[in-house]
Amino acid sequence: MAAPRERGPAPGPGSGTQASHRLLAYSDALLSIIATVMILPVAHTKIHPDQKLGESVQQLLLAKIAVYLMTFLIVTVAWAAHVRLFQVIEHIDDVLALLNLACMMIITFLPYTFSLMASFPGVPFGIFLFSVCAVVIGLIQAVIVAYGFYHPHLLNQQIQESENQNFYKRHILKIILRGPILCFLAAIFSFFFIPLSYVLLGLVIVFPHLTRLIIWCKIKILGQRGEEEEHHSLETFTFYLSEPLSKERVEAFSDGVYAIVATLLILDICEDNVPDPREVEEKFHGSLLEALSEYGPNYLAYFGSFVTIGLLWFVHHSLFLYVTKATRLMGLLNILSLAFIGGLPLAYQLTSEFAEKSHNEIEAIQVSCVITFFASIFQFAIWTTALLNEEETLHAFARYGGKEHAFMFAKLALYPCVSLGAFFLTCLLSEFSTTIFHLMQIVIPFAFLALRIFVRISLTAIKSVMSLSRRKIVLLEEEEACLSPNETLS
Amino acid sequence: MAAPRERGPAPGPGSGTQASHRLLAYSDALLSIIATVMILPVAHTKIHPDQKLGESVQQLLLAKIAVYLMTFLIVTVAWAAHVRLFQVIEHIDDVLALLNLACMMIITFLPYTFSLMASFPGVPFGIFLFSVCAVVIGLIQAVIVAYGFYHPHLLNQQIQESENQNFYKRHILKIILRGPILCFLAAIFSFFFIPLSYVLLGLVIVFPHLTRLIIWCKIKILGQRGEEEEHHSLETFTFYLSEPLSKERVEAFSDGVYAIVATLLILDICEDNVPDPREVEEKFHGSLLEALSEYGPNYLAYFGSFVTIGLLWFVHHSLFLYVTKATRLMGLLNILSLAFIGGLPLAYQLTSEFAEKSHNEIEAIQVSCVITFFASIFQFAIWTTALLNEEETLHAFARYGGKEHAFMFAKLALYPCVSLGAFFLTCLLSEFSTTIFHLMQIVIPFAFLALRIFVRISLTAIKSVMSLSRRKIVLLEEEEACLSPNETLS
Repeated sequence: MAAPRERGPAPGPGSGTQASHRLLAYSDALLSIIATVMILPVAHTKIHPDQKLGESVQQLLLAKIAVYLMTFLIVTVAWAAHVRLFQVIEHIDDVLALLNLACMMIITFLPYTFSLMASFPGVPFGIFLFSVCAVVIGLIQAVIVAYGFYHPHLLNQQIQESENQNFYKRHILKIILRGPILCFLAAIFSFFFIPLSYVLLGLVIVFPHLTRLIIWCKIKILGQRGEEEEHHSLETFTFYLSEPLSKERVEAFSDGVYAIVATLLILDICEDNVPDPREVEEKFHGSLLEALSEYGPNYLAYFGSFVTIGLLWFVHHSLFLYVTKATRLMGLLNILSLAFIGGLPLAYQLTSEFAEKSHNEIEAIQVSCVITFFASIFQFAIWTTALLNEEETLHAFARYGGKEHAFMFAKLALYPCVSLGAFFLTCLLSEFSTTIFHLMQIVIPFAFLALRIFVRISLTAIKSVMSLSRRKIVLLEEEEACLSPNETLS
Repeated sequence: MAAPRERGPAPGPGSGTQASHRLLAYSDALLSIIATVMILPVAHTKIHPDQKLGESVQQLLLAKIAVYLMTFLIVTVAWAAHVRLFQVIEHIDDVLALLNLACMMIITFLPYTFSLMASFPGVPFGIFLFSVCAVVIGLIQAVIVAYGFYHPHLLNQQIQESENQNFYKRHILKIILRGPILCFLAAIFSFFFIPLSYVLLGLVIVFPHLTRLIIWCKIKILGQRGEEEEHHSLETFTFYLSEPLSKERVEAFSDGVYAIVATLLILDICEDNVPDPREVEEKFHGSLLEALSEYGPNYLAYFGSFVTIGLLWFVHHSLFLYVTKATRLMGLLNILSLAFIGGLPLAYQLTSEFAEKSHNEIEAIQVSCVITFFASIFQFAIWTTALLNEEETLHAFARYGGKEHAFMFAKLALYPCVSLGAFFLTCLLSEFSTTIFHLMQIVIPFAFLALRIFVRISLTAIKSVMSLSRRKIVLLEEEEACLSPNETLS
């Protein structure tokens, strides 16, 4: 633990100036939990096992899923703005810490406004309340920026020394305020014409990526013009041209999502699978063990789901170990992957609820497979995106031809393959059940270890075959050399 | 963000060796969430507002609180062992990462065994299951130790270079296995004599602190003997004699608890306070705003509770900014403080449920005050404990006479004073209501800022008064010097 100690307390030189890393870690934890926790109302929607998914239940479920997705996406947008903001302001003091907490308070309130919107889509109040919150968040962040530039010793070293501080100030204000301004318009329109408000709201989420895409298309169509590119890279990238997103904060945010998802499972099992003492007395003649044996499939589902989440974290961890720099596109793919990771408690709930029962069992497994597939395929996409620009984004070990390259590929391809395979098995085999599915999930870590051994063996096999064939070629050439005189002789 | 980058990816020199900091951060997040999340079933116990807390409800509530406290304490014990373990093993590889995940899986399963114990206190199966889990955790950790010492490049530098590796190995195994061995005994006794099992279980929690206390008493009674002290300090402290607990991990664990507590609030408000569309149509003639105005007290409760949690985090953050080293006792006090922090969602639930209603309102406020008081007084205790040994544990600014000392004292004393004051107000004023209580909570951050100004003004006032009085003394002396000749004249 030598490294952590370097990040120790180190109150700065000025009075009351502090290093910001703990404030950022706390903000990351808060934001990742709030982004993910709204899956809980989705997962807890009670559906009777015998009942075919009725229309009213479907509508309720869809509304809750919409709340979850909207929360997730808007929180990630807020998180990205927060990352930008604290790349500019590197040191904090008490006032900034309190302002940041106020900002967090409003952000954690956002899921409630989404719940209102989902329940009353035709009433303007939900979207109005959301927009007001977004505007308040923007104003608080603007105050943070103003405070930071008023006390320049809090700023990033590079900006502190720059002569053009006003440019940076305007630039960061633009990034922070464009969302709230759109929301302000949405708030006004919510009273006249609600659909436009929803369009504006959607725009807030896609805006940063949209501008990137437009610029990218422009470059592709008009050809690469050096001056223009430099101009936009200054504008849309962060101030560290060399480090588009803070890798440390991407990791912290991801860790929070994985951790909360893994722990939401036990909450369900504690609330649903502790038998009622009276029932045990009456139905099972006081034998707790017998009563619990009814829950066997649920335990299996719990361990299976935990293993899946744990291993997906492990893959993410292995990947980011070799990522030296996270670009914007990688960040976007990571967030898409995390959105599906957040859906895993729903997969757990479905497969444990419908275990060994009725026609919903196969559907439940298929939903689980789809969620797992998308979560893992987006991880794979991060890797391929990184490979496109491997000189800058990857450690030498993980590049083409690096010693970890083959194994990394195998690790990342495992879950997409397995989940796709399981999906097709459910279509082919009528005997496929949740029990088999969860057993598959539990066996996979051993597959990981086997994979390592397999990759090593096959690599050495390939090498030895190649060296053998090379020797063969050499031998053949020698033989030929020997033969040709013979041939000429015959 | 200069510091974080130093902790970057840096895959180690050996093949597959990795820095462990992200694994530890993830483990901290998992453990802190699992420790805290069991407050949710407590907070969600439905109590009718008009109903006096009946006996059956009380029993149910007590059982759930017991589950929460047991989980919290046992998870913190497991966390402390985990900290120790990864102070010895500083680098990881894939096998260790997977073993650690397996360990986490069993730890997150523990709350379920507690739920069984609380529902069926007379049945041996609950405690048996818990003990089996604890033994499995111990075995996995022992395997981790064995693996680490088999691959010495994974170990802490100091131990790697030491000639006495076996001593360290035995020592860390003893720390890790003493809990599981007690649990193994508990598992055996659970079939013969359950009370003894519970005693053994309690012993697991207090054991580390008990041994410390006994040693401390021995030293106080028998007098300080240098040789003995050095011996036990090697045994019961960690391997870093200079850093008994990893401050970084104490902070990470605390952040997790504060973050999950802050986000559990919004989950409640989203599930309970979104009105039913049909009800709005019938009761409020379609006016959503009118329907929502009924929830006013809940919003107030939400913001009040969030402000309290946020500020308690802020105080914790300010304190640990100046803590240079966390001793075992400080760690224990921190955990006690966090256990009460974890109770804050319950306080929120009570004050928002009983707002403006019946005789339970005052009791709800009192419970909130008690929880806040204990959470903050233990924070204060950390500070006083640190002051006892300030040369080693505190930054110069925060020591007696340091420039931040007075303000730190004021910050830490604020919440104990306010909660105590609110408690006495509820006893004196019959008019005191949850509305006033939550308004008080919301006003406090401004008190923080006012405090800063007040402390500054009073400090400058004291200084100027002192310098004035010193000048006065000088003047008086001069006067006396002038007078005395006069007097002698008269």
